[in-house]
Amino acid sequence: MSESGAAYQGDEVVERLLRKAGSPYGAADLAGLLAGVAGAPEATDPEAWIDLVASNAGDALKAQLRAYRAEMAAKTAIPGGRAANTAARVAALRAELQQRGLSGFIVPRSDEHQGEYVSPRAERLAWLTGFTGSAGLAIVLQQAAAVFVDGRYTLQVAQQVDGALFVARHVTEQPPEAWIAENLPAGGKLGYDPWLHTPDGLESLRRAAARAGGELVACADNPLDAAWTDQPAAPIAPVRPHELRYTGRDSIDKRTSLGARLAADKVDAAVLTAPDSLAWLLNIRGGDVPRTPLPLGFAVLHADGAVDLFMDRRKFVPGLEAHLGNAVHVHAPDQLAPALDRLGQGKRRVLADPTSAAAWIFDRLAAAGAEVVRAGDPCALPKACKNAVEIEGTRAAHRRDGAAVTRFLAWLSEHAGSGKLSEIEAAEQLAQFRRGNELFRDFSFDTISGAGPNGAIVHYRATSASNRLIRSGELYLVDSGAQYLDGTTDITRTVAIGAPTAEMRDHFTRVLKGHIALGAARFPRGTTGSQLDALARTALWAAGLDYDHGTGHGVGSYLGVHEGPHRISKIPNRVPLEVGMIVSNEPGFYKTGGYGIRIENLVTVVEAPVEGAERPMLGFETLTLAPIDRTLVEPALMAPVETAWLDAYHARVAAAIGPLVDGATAKWLAAATRPLAP
Amino acid sequence: MSESGAAYQGDEVVERLLRKAGSPYGAADLAGLLAGVAGAPEATDPEAWIDLVASNAGDALKAQLRAYRAEMAAKTAIPGGRAANTAARVAALRAELQQRGLSGFIVPRSDEHQGEYVSPRAERLAWLTGFTGSAGLAIVLQQAAAVFVDGRYTLQVAQQVDGALFVARHVTEQPPEAWIAENLPAGGKLGYDPWLHTPDGLESLRRAAARAGGELVACADNPLDAAWTDQPAAPIAPVRPHELRYTGRDSIDKRTSLGARLAADKVDAAVLTAPDSLAWLLNIRGGDVPRTPLPLGFAVLHADGAVDLFMDRRKFVPGLEAHLGNAVHVHAPDQLAPALDRLGQGKRRVLADPTSAAAWIFDRLAAAGAEVVRAGDPCALPKACKNAVEIEGTRAAHRRDGAAVTRFLAWLSEHAGSGKLSEIEAAEQLAQFRRGNELFRDFSFDTISGAGPNGAIVHYRATSASNRLIRSGELYLVDSGAQYLDGTTDITRTVAIGAPTAEMRDHFTRVLKGHIALGAARFPRGTTGSQLDALARTALWAAGLDYDHGTGHGVGSYLGVHEGPHRISKIPNRVPLEVGMIVSNEPGFYKTGGYGIRIENLVTVVEAPVEGAERPMLGFETLTLAPIDRTLVEPALMAPVETAWLDAYHARVAAAIGPLVDGATAKWLAAATRPLAP
Repeated sequence: MSESGAAYQGDEVVERLLRKAGSPYGAADLAGLLAGVAGAPEATDPEAWIDLVASNAGDALKAQLRAYRAEMAAKTAIPGGRAANTAARVAALRAELQQRGLSGFIVPRSDEHQGEYVSPRAERLAWLTGFTGSAGLAIVLQQAAAVFVDGRYTLQVAQQVDGALFVARHVTEQPPEAWIAENLPAGGKLGYDPWLHTPDGLESLRRAAARAGGELVACADNPLDAAWTDQPAAPIAPVRPHELRYTGRDSIDKRTSLGARLAADKVDAAVLTAPDSLAWLLNIRGGDVPRTPLPLGFAVLHADGAVDLFMDRRKFVPGLEAHLGNAVHVHAPDQLAPALDRLGQGKRRVLADPTSAAAWIFDRLAAAGAEVVRAGDPCALPKACKNAVEIEGTRAAHRRDGAAVTRFLAWLSEHAGSGKLSEIEAAEQLAQFRRGNELFRDFSFDTISGAGPNGAIVHYRATSASNRLIRSGELYLVDSGAQYLDGTTDITRTVAIGAPTAEMRDHFTRVLKGHIALGAARFPRGTTGSQLDALARTALWAAGLDYDHGTGHGVGSYLGVHEGPHRISKIPNRVPLEVGMIVSNEPGFYKTGGYGIRIENLVTVVEAPVEGAERPMLGFETLTLAPIDRTLVEPALMAPVETAWLDAYHARVAAAIGPLVDGATAKWLAAATRPLAP
Repeated sequence: MSESGAAYQGDEVVERLLRKAGSPYGAADLAGLLAGVAGAPEATDPEAWIDLVASNAGDALKAQLRAYRAEMAAKTAIPGGRAANTAARVAALRAELQQRGLSGFIVPRSDEHQGEYVSPRAERLAWLTGFTGSAGLAIVLQQAAAVFVDGRYTLQVAQQVDGALFVARHVTEQPPEAWIAENLPAGGKLGYDPWLHTPDGLESLRRAAARAGGELVACADNPLDAAWTDQPAAPIAPVRPHELRYTGRDSIDKRTSLGARLAADKVDAAVLTAPDSLAWLLNIRGGDVPRTPLPLGFAVLHADGAVDLFMDRRKFVPGLEAHLGNAVHVHAPDQLAPALDRLGQGKRRVLADPTSAAAWIFDRLAAAGAEVVRAGDPCALPKACKNAVEIEGTRAAHRRDGAAVTRFLAWLSEHAGSGKLSEIEAAEQLAQFRRGNELFRDFSFDTISGAGPNGAIVHYRATSASNRLIRSGELYLVDSGAQYLDGTTDITRTVAIGAPTAEMRDHFTRVLKGHIALGAARFPRGTTGSQLDALARTALWAAGLDYDHGTGHGVGSYLGVHEGPHRISKIPNRVPLEVGMIVSNEPGFYKTGGYGIRIENLVTVVEAPVEGAERPMLGFETLTLAPIDRTLVEPALMAPVETAWLDAYHARVAAAIGPLVDGATAKWLAAATRPLAP
């Protein structure tokens, strides 16, 4: 598995090379460090971690480090797919539980930060069950076990999980609470890891256990981790400064202003557990989880603007501490507990977010005597409202990204008709176009490349088993995005391969009408995304159609492609849309076994003055720039204002993207963006 | 103040008359009974209460009872308007507080049932402050006092409340919590009556008191009641059966089915504190509060379908106990406390609704040892989903009501142009038309009759001080409704007097477009009113306009004109719209100092099959039948589907109402409902 030819030549040789390169580490330190490196997800630059060992490593040292890392990687099992030995793993967990006097254990997909993307070490659910989806929960009792997933994953769970070990349940239709109430024996002790649940999330599980006559028991250390002998180490990926030219605002300014807000609310400190909050607040980026440049860690923000940062220093690239400055005090991760204890002993009022911080945080603070203020993460809203520099950055990123997508669409129009192009090949071609872009760092999520019926699977990922050829007469849906230093992108286009049916055109046009109704909406300051969600649906509703996902999620600035606190969804959300927020506009329609349609642009909230307006009005500026397939639009269904919107959008795309692409693409683009209106 | 010429001739005479009439009461019982009668709001039939004393009272007895009641009424002060002696009242309350060692006391507008309409006895806020609005809260400390009202009432509170006694605050902009935190002295004990607050409502007040270094203290008896020496008695208004031909469903059927639901949820009993829940569940109606036929009382519904009803038997018309049947056990109101204690001693699981039941209920249940299940009132949803008989009833009621409103609009078109008609005269004429209707029992709220700028006051009530003449060139807004035995109505029409301006037509048309967008919407089963609210606003938003109230409230069946659990509002509501729910559709626009526009129809949720639909779709059937002023519609702003909707609605109105009105009205109606489309 070695990435280069060289084998590890032993500690003595390496010790010398390290000293020569001026590394702070000796050979004895490497085992731990490289276990962490091996425990990080694959990075776009697979050798970036070498900087952490020595910034001036010569070729000989590099070769030795590569070899050592390869050895470490071979020892750790990164879980994924249907594992043959889940039966043995479940048995090992059950033995561990029995030894601890537990009747069962709850295994969520979450990590200690409750994020959507987690490090390999935190893929406990995948290790135990084989299920690799991005959300789910398993419960293992001695006599029974179940895995709970949402509607996106009912098919996948059936493919990946051994039905003899786990019953699979739909998480809202047959929730874990009902299963616990039925299956937990009276007097049963159901264990959970308080690091992997929020206090809000535990409440209903606790009641369910009580209903069964049992109880929920917090485990001081995770019994699954004890059973998982080759569990990856906590990830060590480089943490770097994120420069002012991208962030637009000094970390010290952010910290001082947030600290003052805490002081005004008579709060002494806030515990920050969301890595994207840390990244935003401290203007740093990392690589501890896939697809999002997150540095895993915790922080305490004090009302005076000082920060205690609990993060493994070995992740820091040279110069990072200087970038963090004097008011950010770095501590080892295991120092978080005593720090919370000291806040408690000082009877401090400490804020933590019950929707995102682990129950462990609340338990520890309360036990130590702190007055816990349950309130939203103070970074969430200022992070969501991008400043002028961030907006300018995302506009630039969207131009480059739009050029890559446009090149892909032009390429597709040439190649897809052959019937020989597969979903995976198409996605790889799109990836190639993107990789060449300036400031490209990663994809922002795994590309969804779905032809025909695969397009109807909302969170489809093409695998060797599912990979389909793109055929004429079908629709092809591609949802993809990238992480650029100056912005995060996320775009979906649906393309007709050959001639679409009248039904496809009708339904595509209704999705487009919803996209336009939302994109062109004006709304008063104070309006939430929940209020606007229906605008994207009414054209579908009129035909008895709908889609079972939200209409828009927040998007970060070289951060999460999904971020809060706002969203456009029928699920009630009380956060008003504010100027500078970025959100997706992505209505869709899915015909199971037939085709999928989704049209997704990112938009940003802007002031939208209206002549004669009696109140301040807001609207959206569309950031995403790539053509929408005109051949799928049924003009008879379009109102004149809708046609005008589409034509104006296409004119913008042509003007912005045309100069960035090659001649053949430019020609295709000109045709693809010509007006619908005669 | 006597209503007839006769004076009370003494107990001996009356005793004889009572015996002769076969009354169960002696003269000695009359004082208490008639104090209660005097404590009830004025009824449409002012002598209905005589039945409670003797169902066959002769003229002589009637005269004596009238005289006695008049004496009782003279002794009780029904509060209202700016009372000259609020200073003395505040002083009396402060003395009472001092005696009890309290630093202050919280006086909400609520009664023990948290309803919108309360009995005269519960008008504590009006008595203390002079403020007669339907929502508000006062806090009296020894050195300071404040009254908190919402945006509807900022003007009214300034007119009614003595600024030297109370500072007036906007309840959301300067909330009571902030005032408490600033003004309650450290160590202060702030009293509250646990009967007049929900546990949910108390939480933030409790935190505010703690923030000031003080505490909230529950008062076993209300100190304001002690200071209010001529406080009206608890109301005694006749409680009658509500017949099966109106309810469509036996009480025993309702009770059995709800009891089974409780049993399925492993709940032993539910405490019902909402009088409309009692009225619906037991198929009874009363008259203890104005404008809504509510019988005040409490009930415990058991899982076996049996009910303990805590209600003053003296309110029952003859035969009511037979109507209630064997499984409804009637107890005096003071037996509620021991009944809750028994539930606690039995360790029962008892449901109570933390959003509508008094904190007292929860405190008592918890103290007695019950397991309290905090969940929604189990009657709310089945009450909201009207059955076929109720829907047929409300359709009939809306035809009769529509005829009265149409007669009024025709009459208005003839008389309003003179410039001599006042708002109060217009409202009185409308009331006259309604009173003549079959099955009419009351108005469902005080009519809003607002000309010109008064129309811009959303909850305007014309008083002798505010009464305006209706003038040419102005808009006139009338929002009114009635209680019929077969249904409750609520309609708003806005009428141009003379020629409207272009702006009026533009804004009216935008309100109409919102009304139509909502009224014509199709939506999938599971959709909430919160999701639909924006449909009624987008046409206004596009012009930078909006309105600051919800778009739709639930309406009862000969019950509250405002009922839950559903509503159409930007405020998040998680209750899906279900077939049979009645809800208003009432977008508006208000130009302060200029004019008000509101178009309100009641609609009911119906199945709305769509050809080719992939899921079950719902829509609205409009119940309200009266013309919408065509002269205010700007055809250029109307999309063809909108014009078609209006023309179809008007055709329905003409067909349904034409045959019910006189010839002159019918002629006016034909013109008022002619199609807009050429």
